[in-house]
Amino acid sequence: MRETESGIREFEGDLIAGVDIGGTNTAVGIVGDEGRLLSRSAFPTTDHETAGEFVRHLAKTIRQLVGELPPPARLCGVGMAAPAANWRTGTVESPANLRWGTVDLVSMVRGEFGLPVTISNDANAALLGEMTYGVARGMSNAILITLGTGLGAGIAVDGAIVQGENGAAGEFGHMNMELHGRQCGCGQRGCAEAYVSATGFKRTVFALLAERLEESELRQTSFGALTADRVSALARTGDVIALAALEVTGRYLGRLMANLAAAFDPEAIILGGGLVGAGDLLMEPARRAFMESALKRYTATVRILVSPSNEGQMAILGASRCARQTGVTAEAS
Amino acid sequence: MRETESGIREFEGDLIAGVDIGGTNTAVGIVGDEGRLLSRSAFPTTDHETAGEFVRHLAKTIRQLVGELPPPARLCGVGMAAPAANWRTGTVESPANLRWGTVDLVSMVRGEFGLPVTISNDANAALLGEMTYGVARGMSNAILITLGTGLGAGIAVDGAIVQGENGAAGEFGHMNMELHGRQCGCGQRGCAEAYVSATGFKRTVFALLAERLEESELRQTSFGALTADRVSALARTGDVIALAALEVTGRYLGRLMANLAAAFDPEAIILGGGLVGAGDLLMEPARRAFMESALKRYTATVRILVSPSNEGQMAILGASRCARQTGVTAEAS
Repeated sequence: MRETESGIREFEGDLIAGVDIGGTNTAVGIVGDEGRLLSRSAFPTTDHETAGEFVRHLAKTIRQLVGELPPPARLCGVGMAAPAANWRTGTVESPANLRWGTVDLVSMVRGEFGLPVTISNDANAALLGEMTYGVARGMSNAILITLGTGLGAGIAVDGAIVQGENGAAGEFGHMNMELHGRQCGCGQRGCAEAYVSATGFKRTVFALLAERLEESELRQTSFGALTADRVSALARTGDVIALAALEVTGRYLGRLMANLAAAFDPEAIILGGGLVGAGDLLMEPARRAFMESALKRYTATVRILVSPSNEGQMAILGASRCARQTGVTAEAS
Repeated sequence: MRETESGIREFEGDLIAGVDIGGTNTAVGIVGDEGRLLSRSAFPTTDHETAGEFVRHLAKTIRQLVGELPPPARLCGVGMAAPAANWRTGTVESPANLRWGTVDLVSMVRGEFGLPVTISNDANAALLGEMTYGVARGMSNAILITLGTGLGAGIAVDGAIVQGENGAAGEFGHMNMELHGRQCGCGQRGCAEAYVSATGFKRTVFALLAERLEESELRQTSFGALTADRVSALARTGDVIALAALEVTGRYLGRLMANLAAAFDPEAIILGGGLVGAGDLLMEPARRAFMESALKRYTATVRILVSPSNEGQMAILGASRCARQTGVTAEAS
C-alpha cells in the first residue's frame, strides 16, 4: 500500500483473506502485504448446516470485503485457521461444535477462487500472527497457549511452527498433571485441560464450593449456567471462592508453563483466550507458580506474555501470513 | 573409503574424530565419511586434574588413532559430545563429575589441530547418531531419552536438533511428575529425574523397602553401595522388591513418554542409557503405562525403541556428524 500525492491510499494488489473459523463465529479479514488488516467482518459459523453452505457464504463475504476496497485491490490467496485443522490434508476434522464431519475446506475454498488456499490449526495461526505482528514479533522460539473451552497451543522452534510427525504436536491440554486427577474428555484422568481452561476453571469453582464453607454468590449458580467471565467478574468484587478458583487455576498454569519451559526452552510463553481476561488475578499466581516450579535458568530467561484481547485478530493475520508464505513457495517451486 | 583391486582399503581423507566425554570415561572414535567407525579408544576422563591436561591427552589419542590408519588418512575435524555442553559458546559448564569449572573446550581443541571443532550435548549427539546411522535412521521427528545417573534427552523436529533459545531445551528430567514429590538435585520436588533415572530407580527401591514387608536381598545393601545394575540382576532372579521397583520406574517412564508424545508428536521415542539394560522388566510396564496414558492418536503412531547397547558409539558417530555438518557449513559460508 502506498499513499499518493493526493493522499488517497492505493492498494497494490496482493491482498490475502485471513479467516478464523471458530465454533461460534467466523471472522474474516482482508490483509495487505505488510500484514495490515484493511477490513474485517464476521458471521455466525453455526448458521450453516452444511460445509458447502458455509463455504459459499464465506466466499461471498470475502468478495464483498475486497470489492469495497479502492482499486487495484486484487485477492491473491485465502488463509484459514480452525480448531482441529490438519494443515497436511487441508481438512477440518469434526470440530466439536460443528456437525460437518471431516471436510476438505481447502479444496472447497480453492474451487471458489482458483487461488492458493491454506488451513492451519487456530493456535498455530495465532502464534504465527504474534511472531510476525504481535507481542512475539522477532522471536524464533515461542509457545502460545489459548485458554478457552479447551486448552489450545502452538509451538515455534527456530522460527518455524512445530507440526509434529502427524500434525498433532502441542497437545499440552492432554499432558498429565495429576496422577489420579479429574476425568478428561479424552478418556484419561488428570489432563492439564481439566484444570487449565475455562471449563477446568469452572470445575475448580465447584470443587471449592464442595470443599470450603465461605459464602459466595457462586452457590446460587448451576454448573450449566456458570461462565468463566462471570467467575472472573465476581472475583473482582472480592468473592472468596472466585478468587480462590483463580489462584488454583493460575498455579496449575504456572506449573504447566514450568514444564513447557524445561521441554522447549522458549524465549516467551504467550497466553491468550477468554480466561486470560481475568487479568492479574489469574496471572499473578501463574507467574508465582512458574517462578517456584521452573529451573532457575528458565525463570531468568523465559518471558510470560499476555496477548492483548483483539477478537482473534492474530489468528486472522497469522492465517493470512501462512497463505502468503505458501503462495510464494508454490510459485517458486 | 574404497576398496582397491588388491583388496586393501584406502581411506580417502575426510576423517572426523568423534569424542564422547563422560563423567568417568572419554571415548574417542575415528569416523569415515559414510559414518563408519574405523577405530576407537578410551581413557579415564577423571585422570586429568585440569582441562588443559585433558585436552593434551585427547589430542595425543586422536593423533595416535589417525596415525594407525592406512594413508591417505587425513583428519578434517573434531566433534565432541559432553553433558552440560553449550553448543553456542563451545563451553562445558561445570559438569557434575568434573572439577574443571566452565571451560572453552572447543577453542582449546581447535588450538591443538587448527581444524573445525564442535561440541554438543551428549544426548543431542546420540540422537543425531541414531537418526543418521541407528534405530531412528531416516526419521525427522524423534526424541531420545538416556537413563543414566540423571535423565538426559535430545529432541529432533523436522530433521533438526532442537536447542531452544538458550541451548536448554529437552530438560525433561526437570518436568514435574508429582506435585509434592521427591526432592530433586535442582531444588524442586517431584521432577521426572527423581523417578526415571538410575538414581531415581534406587530411590524407588528404598521407598519399597520401607513400604513393603517381603524378604529381599536388597535389605542387606546400603543406599551408597547399591547400583541399578545390581537391582536389575536381582529382578531377573525373581526378587520381589527389585521387580516392583522396575514396575514403578517403568510406569513413571511410560507416563513421561505419554506427556512427551502430546507435546512433540514424534515418530519415535528412543530409550538408551544404563538403566535400559534391565530390558523387558522395565520396558513392559513402560509400554503399558504409555498405552494407558497417551491419547489414542499417539499410541497408534509413536514407536518406542530401545537403542542397542554399544558403549556410546552413537554419541561418537553423532558428534562426528555434527562436526562434519559444521565444517561443510563453515566452508560454504
